[in-house]
Amino acid sequence: MNLEELEQRIALRARASADESYTAKLLARGMEKCAQKLGEEAVEAVIAAVRGDRAELVKEAADVLYHLLVVLKAAGTPLAEVMDELDNRTALSGLAEKAARKERG
Amino acid sequence: MNLEELEQRIALRARASADESYTAKLLARGMEKCAQKLGEEAVEAVIAAVRGDRAELVKEAADVLYHLLVVLKAAGTPLAEVMDELDNRTALSGLAEKAARKERG
Amino acid sequence: MNLEELEQRIALRARASADESYTAKLLARGMEKCAQKLGEEAVEAVIAAVRGDRAELVKEAADVLYHLLVVLKAAGTPLAEVMDELDNRTALSGLAEKAARKERG
Amino acid sequence: MNLEELEQRIALRARASADESYTAKLLARGMEKCAQKLGEEAVEAVIAAVRGDRAELVKEAADVLYHLLVVLKAAGTPLAEVMDELDNRTALSGLAEKAARKERG
Repeated sequence: MNLEELEQRIALRARASADESYTAKLLARGMEKCAQKLGEEAVEAVIAAVRGDRAELVKEAADVLYHLLVVLKAAGTPLAEVMDELDNRTALSGLAEKAARKERG
Repeated sequence: MNLEELEQRIALRARASADESYTAKLLARGMEKCAQKLGEEAVEAVIAAVRGDRAELVKEAADVLYHLLVVLKAAGTPLAEVMDELDNRTALSGLAEKAARKERG
Repeated sequence: MNLEELEQRIALRARASADESYTAKLLARGMEKCAQKLGEEAVEAVIAAVRGDRAELVKEAADVLYHLLVVLKAAGTPLAEVMDELDNRTALSGLAEKAARKERG
Repeated sequence: MNLEELEQRIALRARASADESYTAKLLARGMEKCAQKLGEEAVEAVIAAVRGDRAELVKEAADVLYHLLVVLKAAGTPLAEVMDELDNRTALSGLAEKAARKERG
């Protein structure tokens, strides 16, 4: 799976009833609740990372990605906009690094 | 760009010197610092989301994704493990939803 | 010092110019910035706690208390309201515990 | 009530059984769980602050104070150390402000 497929699954679940789907239920509770869950999962990922608990980090990182996409869904923001932002930033910084390497010869 | 390409770019930057690359510098400061940045960016994403500031949310969501991958890099955990975890979870919940739909006829 | 004195000091600083006082500067940047700082300091306190770094925890706990009072100031909420809330909750739970002890004999 | 009294109440509850007392139960789950709760409550306080929901902010600020003291208890760190740290910092910055006022005449 990739993140774009996860975005599609979330879009699909969002159309289910709140009884059937955790995603639909969370979205029905509104942006504050979605954002709160993102914040909580980030705290758990931070703790797992600092403790060096790799198995837990995998689970918490998955929770962060999932709830980040739910927040984007709640905001009506396509993941593609976020990936474009990342592409621009990291491509630029790649060029800057290349330029720096050339300067040093 | 997709998340796998971002993972590759981060792996590339990680090999640069801390002078040249923000990524290398952050990784050199250790896991606590990487995790702290992840937590801070998540807080900013939460605030942008709750305020309904979509332009800011795009930037902060990009920061969350980037710093999450830096934390995974610091932990030596491949993104693929996180995506597999997400695949298992959301596939299962898809089956559960399908079963629920059948039951209702 | 106690928390009420800290609240008074923050109220005093809030009247200084933003050039002179970090507190005044932070308040001038608005609630989002004050709340963001609170979130960031909480993340740092969490990390210090999980790492078992007691010296760092003292500093980060101080930062959390300070920025929490700045947020209350920005909201125009007196600390006394928060302390009353705490009093009500913990007094109640004390009674509940006392009752439970009596029931068991 | 003041924060020192809350610290005493938490110390008292800590000696109860985990069945009777939320405080005792949380402490029994270990520092990671206490720190996680602190992080989660901070996220909720941030959200209440940014939304301008003052009634909710009072509750969440109370939760932050309570869970911060639980974390200090779990770490065996007296609140007095944190208050001394705050006293030193804010006293110093008061002197700096006074000096600045004198310079300007």
